This record gives sequence, structure tokens and C-alpha cells, in this order.
Amino acid sequence: MMKLSEVARALDLERSGDDVTITGVAPLEMAGPGDLTFAGKKSLLPRAVRAAAVVVPPELTAAVTGPALVSATPAVTLGQVGRLLGMAELTVTGIHPSAVIDPSARLAEGVTVGPLAVVGPEVVIGPGTVIHAGAVIHARCLIGARCIIHSNVVVGGEGFGYEPGPRGLERIPHFGIVRIEDDVEIGACTTIDRARFGATVVGAGTKIDNLVQIAHNVQIGPHSVIVSQVGIAGSARLGSGVQVAGQAGIGDHCVLGDGVKVAASTGVPPRAEVPPGTTWGGWWGQEYRKAWTEQVALRKLPDFMKRVEEFLKKAGA
Amino acid sequence: MMKLSEVARALDLERSGDDVTITGVAPLEMAGPGDLTFAGKKSLLPRAVRAAAVVVPPELTAAVTGPALVSATPAVTLGQVGRLLGMAELTVTGIHPSAVIDPSARLAEGVTVGPLAVVGPEVVIGPGTVIHAGAVIHARCLIGARCIIHSNVVVGGEGFGYEPGPRGLERIPHFGIVRIEDDVEIGACTTIDRARFGATVVGAGTKIDNLVQIAHNVQIGPHSVIVSQVGIAGSARLGSGVQVAGQAGIGDHCVLGDGVKVAASTGVPPRAEVPPGTTWGGWWGQEYRKAWTEQVALRKLPDFMKRVEEFLKKAGA
Amino acid sequence: MMKLSEVARALDLERSGDDVTITGVAPLEMAGPGDLTFAGKKSLLPRAVRAAAVVVPPELTAAVTGPALVSATPAVTLGQVGRLLGMAELTVTGIHPSAVIDPSARLAEGVTVGPLAVVGPEVVIGPGTVIHAGAVIHARCLIGARCIIHSNVVVGGEGFGYEPGPRGLERIPHFGIVRIEDDVEIGACTTIDRARFGATVVGAGTKIDNLVQIAHNVQIGPHSVIVSQVGIAGSARLGSGVQVAGQAGIGDHCVLGDGVKVAASTGVPPRAEVPPGTTWGGWWGQEYRKAWTEQVALRKLPDFMKRVEEFLKKAGA
Repeated sequence: MMKLSEVARALDLERSGDDVTITGVAPLEMAGPGDLTFAGKKSLLPRAVRAAAVVVPPELTAAVTGPALVSATPAVTLGQVGRLLGMAELTVTGIHPSAVIDPSARLAEGVTVGPLAVVGPEVVIGPGTVIHAGAVIHARCLIGARCIIHSNVVVGGEGFGYEPGPRGLERIPHFGIVRIEDDVEIGACTTIDRARFGATVVGAGTKIDNLVQIAHNVQIGPHSVIVSQVGIAGSARLGSGVQVAGQAGIGDHCVLGDGVKVAASTGVPPRAEVPPGTTWGGWWGQEYRKAWTEQVALRKLPDFMKRVEEFLKKAGA
Repeated sequence: MMKLSEVARALDLERSGDDVTITGVAPLEMAGPGDLTFAGKKSLLPRAVRAAAVVVPPELTAAVTGPALVSATPAVTLGQVGRLLGMAELTVTGIHPSAVIDPSARLAEGVTVGPLAVVGPEVVIGPGTVIHAGAVIHARCLIGARCIIHSNVVVGGEGFGYEPGPRGLERIPHFGIVRIEDDVEIGACTTIDRARFGATVVGAGTKIDNLVQIAHNVQIGPHSVIVSQVGIAGSARLGSGVQVAGQAGIGDHCVLGDGVKVAASTGVPPRAEVPPGTTWGGWWGQEYRKAWTEQVALRKLPDFMKRVEEFLKKAGA
Repeated sequence: MMKLSEVARALDLERSGDDVTITGVAPLEMAGPGDLTFAGKKSLLPRAVRAAAVVVPPELTAAVTGPALVSATPAVTLGQVGRLLGMAELTVTGIHPSAVIDPSARLAEGVTVGPLAVVGPEVVIGPGTVIHAGAVIHARCLIGARCIIHSNVVVGGEGFGYEPGPRGLERIPHFGIVRIEDDVEIGACTTIDRARFGATVVGAGTKIDNLVQIAHNVQIGPHSVIVSQVGIAGSARLGSGVQVAGQAGIGDHCVLGDGVKVAASTGVPPRAEVPPGTTWGGWWGQEYRKAWTEQVALRKLPDFMKRVEEFLKKAGA
């Protein structure tokens, strides 16, 4: 527990109202006595009454009556206060004795490897990176600094590539690796295949959710966001700051420019070139506004057809 | 092997025809000599001739000629007889010595933990629950009684949440947990993220298939069924008895009322409110009948367009 | 490193131009000094100048000027040369001491089991098969020869089957297994459920990508290709040489004839019968050409509607 004034001092924030005691943090709908909560809009302030205090953005300073902190980023502040209070998070540290780490792997200082994770031969892992339980990093893959690799992820399995041979499809050798740059997060049970040549790359600061498939030779730029169950097919290239929403599929050899957004469940066709800064949507993916317009038209289609058919009938057509 | 009369006695069922010997159970298309099979419709009875005996519902009692058992739930009966006969199932019991169980975890009596599963600090697991090989239960998560957690499941990884920070996206702390109630089943490689605050909840009796994504703070009511490869985005709330078919996606903050059904591959848009008892469908999800009507209209669209274009041409438009 | 003449001799290929030294292999866009590359079209030859030598198909023999090898299958040749040069691949051999192999499992000669993989009781694995790190093969499943089971795969978990019971949904016993035939590959985090009766079957030479779901009692014929994130529901039957592209869903009890192709993101409705040799597509799956025609019509729909509405207005309808 901390006094609100201590919190304000620790985070260098302005404070108003009584100097109450804070025992935890919680969102508006869950906050009770002792909790610090936050409200981003004036209309939400009345719901904060059950909480001990509220974090508000500067524009609400005048509107708030009870104990408050002022922060330009209230949600971030709430997380910081939770940490100050020692609220429990998912923390793992050190190398768990059950992890299987090849002697030729090179782990920087402060690397964490959870229980039953596997780090293959000649893997290189940067400082501060966390490999959670059950994750597998295959031979020679490179993982940057401060990455988080969640449980049961597979990095560096062989890509899905075959050529017709005398006994059916024959596996094409994969001489490449996976290179994960700094500050990348990879969600649970996500799979990232090694390249046929060179490297499958995930750029610095990119965040990948659970159950995502990233095929061989894909190149993802920095600071991109790939939401759960997205599939990115072989050799697709995503620029910087790309956002792909849940369950979307990116066809092989697609090129997505910087800042492209792809809506949920969108299928971007193979070899599509998506211009920088555009948003795409649709089952058969295209520019979002067009896809949306079509979906709206589709919703009117049954009635429209009926009216037109009646007209044609009357017109004797 | 058992006599049909012994089976009838053991399960308290009516029996007719010869008291044959049963050595196994099998569905109609696979049943051979010695097998007990079942037929739910009169038209299927002739296909049961290769079997030793057949389980039928009460309304077929008169129609059946050979050895038979009568049961209101023939499929359930068939499974029970297989168990009576000692047919092999996937059974694991006890705590496998290779499992990594934190000393602070509390496992009730009769909990099974398979090889190389991971149970984190302060996890609580109710009686009779089975954790299969390679599954990971992260710190402080709560698992009820008689649950089945399949192989390589990940429960309690950190949710996918970020705020913009000075060095790009910064992870938001997750102070919450996952709470799995009694009699829940979670399919292989499914991922259930821990809450930002409070708990991500799966209600009692709910069954979740393989490769399902359940994001942070999702609330799933009791006795729901979530089929394979479904994705449920952050803070969505599903009522009691909800059924979501394969590959459907539920957007963030959706509210699905009790008894809602979502068809396969349906995308329920973020923040949608789906009224209790309704069925939704469509790539851009909506009430099922409307979605269906539109799809039917779409199938007629190319011909319709051609006819109308011809008419317009004739009309000089 | 090898002389081009040594490579030609080793692989029994024709050679032309200087007998240069080869130190590696790489695709056109990555090839540098010392590399062997390949060009399948005349237009690509100028891009090969930075490479030491190029593999070309017979029809380009006359067009090539520098050092070259002639091969009917240039991509395959490139892989073979990489192997001759000892380029690194993902190789694992032997039984890793951390793998958990039930004493009753029977592993043929030359089987590889990676770190922390699990092989259950009475599993049978054919010669030359590789089980990668973290994969789980449940009791009594049968794996053929020369298979590759990637990391964190789950073979033989219980299928998703329930019947209503007094305390909600009750699990139906699964007395069956999974049978994987020879030369099958199964991608990372893919799940294949055991059958209720008999076996879930994957036919010889079939290749399955990452994160695929194969439900109980599915039958997949030989030499099929199932791309990432596909879901195949219970009791579906796929013929020989079937190809299912990424994120497609095959409904329960579907029958796909030999040589059927299913486009990406296609939903094949439950119990559909897809004739041999046909291609299917569409969110609500059907014959591909029809699905395509509808999607093209949908793209024209907003403009078409506008024109027709204007016409109707003028016509006073």
C-alpha cells in the first residue's frame, strides 16, 4: 500500500484531493475501496466513485472532485502504479534446470529460459530476452534483446516446401534461419518457419499474438502488429508499422507497404501489392472502403433483387 | 467379452433376441462379427446384419429382428459397453516424474499431470483434473475439478496488450489470471491468455476444441461449446450455452447472449451485441437468416446482372 | 567449396563455361560471388551475373553465356548442391535423453526423437522417422517410415465429441487411434485427434503444414497437401492428391474426391460432396469458377445498383 502522494512523487505526476491510501489498481468496472482506477472521459467520472482515487488526463483536471492523479497516459500510469504496489505479474527469471539448451547456443546476460523450453545448437539470444515454458528455438536462429517468446512457440522449423520427385513430393532443403530482432514479442503456439535461403525476419519492436503462422522467407518490418491466428504465406514482405488484424491471411509473395492495415478475416491474395498507408479488407481482399461498400451493397441485395424482378415482370421483360 | 444379457444387466437395459457374445463395439460401417453396433433409424437396421447385436432406441423395438438392446441414448450406451469390455482409451494417471510442478502449486486429490507438462507457482487444480503432456499452466491460474487440459495447451500467458511508449509499443502489465471452472475441456494447442485485471474465465462444463485462441479478459459462460480454430478477442463476453462453430472469430468486447449460436467461419464484428437465443452467420456476421438470404442472392447475382444489363440496353438506358 | 566440374560429375549434369569454384548456393536475388544460383526463364539470366554460376533448364542452354549447369529441375539441383557443399540444415539425429518414451513404444531403426518429445505407450514408429522437440504422440498411434513430425505437434489427443448427459455435456469415449502412413510430414503445432472408433488416417506422402486441425475420424488420402491453418472437421474424407490451401475449412463428413483443390480461406460446408478433379472456392464454398464469377459480380455491385436505382427512379418505379 502507498499514499497517493508517494505515488505522485514516484511517477512525477500532479495530484489533487485527499491524500488517500492506495492498495491496488483496477479498471472502472472492477474498482473498489483502496483501488486506483482511471477515467479517460468526463462521462466516466461518476463511475469512479467506488474507487479510492482516479487517474485522469489533463483536460479532466477541473472536472474531477475526489482524490486524483493527472497523467497524459492514464492506462500506462495505472500499470506503473500496479508495479509500484508489487501486484503480481507473470514473472520468470533465470534458466530453469529442465530447459534443454545446446552447449553451442550463446545466451547473453539476463536471458530467461522457462521450464522445458528448447534452445538448439548455435542459437544466439540477446540480453534480457525471455523464453517461456515449452518454446522451441531451432538451430542457428537469432533472437534479439528484450524479446518475449511465449510458451510452446516454435521458431525455426523447416518451411513447407516441396518439389515433385520420383517418390512423390520431396522436401526442399532449407539452408536458412529465422532472425528475430530486438523487442519482439511472439505469442503462445505461434510458428515461424526458417528460410529456404537467408532468413525469415521479424523486425525490431514487432508484436505477434498467439497461434500465428509465419512461413519461410517472410520479412516483417519493425514496429508491426500481427494479431492472433493470422497466417502469412511464404516470401510475403511486410513493411514498417504494418497492422494485421485477427484471422487475416496474407498470400505468398505479397508486398505490404509501410503502415498498411489489414482488417480482421481479410484474405490478401497471393502476390498482391498493397500501397503504403492503405487499409485493406474483404474476404477477397482489396482497398477497405471498396470492400466495405460492397458488403453494404450485399446487405441490400435481396430486397433490391426483389424490387427489380417485380419491375422487370411488370415491364414484360 | 460379455454375453449380451450381462451387458443388459450391467446397464439396466431391455434386451431382445438371442443372448449372443459381444467382443467389441463399432459404428455401423465398421461393425463385424462379435461387435455391438447401434442404429438410430429404421432405414439403417439392414446395415446392422454383420454385427452381433444392435442398440436401438425404444421406437425401433418392434422393427428389430436379431439380438438387440434398447436404449434412449444408443450412442452413449455404445461408449459404456466399450468401457465395460475394457476397450483401450487414452488414459493417463498420476503425476509423471518429468512434469515440472512448482512447489507452491496446490493439486487436489486424483489430479493427473502428464509427461513434460508445466504447472506454475501458486496454481490451484481441482480434484480429478487431467493435464496432458506438454501443457503449460502459468502462475496463479485456477483450474477446477474434473477438467481435461489437452497436450501443449497454454493457459495464462500474458495477454496481447500494448500502449505507445518512447521506444515503440510497450507491454501493458497483466495483473490478472485465468480461471477455469469445473468440468471444462480445453483442446490441444489452445491458448488462453491471462487477464489484464481480474480473470479470464471459462465457465463450468464448457468444452473448447483444439487450436482455439481466447484473449485476455474474455468471459465464457457455462456449458458453452467452442469449436476448433475459433478466435475470441479481448474482453468479449459469451453467455451460457453458447455455441461457436469452427474458425469463427468473435471481435473484442462483443457480448453474446445465452444460447447464441455462431456458424462456422463467421466474423462477429467488435463490440457487437448478439441477442440471446439467436444464430449468427456470414463473413461479416449478422443474424443467420439474413446472412443466408444474402449468400443465396449472391449466387444468383451474375445471371441477374446479365439479364438486367440486357434489359437496360434494350431500354436504351 | 567445390569446382563446378566436380558438382557436374557428382550430380551427372552437363556443364558449360569456365570451371569456377562454388562456395554456396542462393536464389537470384541473394546470390553473390562464389554462389551457384538458378534461372528458369531467359528474362532472369541477366540477374545471375553476380553469381559464380547458374543452373538452367535445357531450353536455356543456348542463351546462357557464363559458367552453367543444365538440369531439368534447377530448384532441386540447387538444393542438392547445397547439401554437397555441406550447407547447414535443421538436422537432428538419435534419441535425445530428455525425450519421454514409454517403454512399450516400438521405434524402428534410425528413428530420431528430439528434446522433450513424448512418445506414449504402444506407439509404433517406422524407420527413419523424425519426431521434433516437444511433439506428443499419444498411446497406440501408428507412425510410418520416413515421416517428419515437427515441434509441438499433438497426434492422438481425444476427439471433440460429447453427448448430453445428466451433468451437461459428457465426453464420448474414443476407442480409436491415429495412423500416419509413410513419408508424411506434419507441421509445427498441428493437432490430429484420435478416432472414436478405428483410426484417423493420414495417407502416404501427404504433407501437412503448421497449425492445422484434423479432427477425429478424418481420412486423408495419399500425396495430399494441407496448407497452414486449415481445419478439417470430424469424419471428413479426402481422396488422393487433394490440395487444401491456407485457412480453408472442411466441414464434417465432407467427401473430397481425388485431385480436388480447395482455394485459400474457402469454407466447404458440412457433408458436401466435392467431385474428383474439381476446384472449390468461396467463403460459402462451391465450384471455383462460380465462386469467382460471383466475387467479380460483387465488385461491380455498388455501381450496378446505383445505375439501376437511377433507371428505376426515372422510370417512375
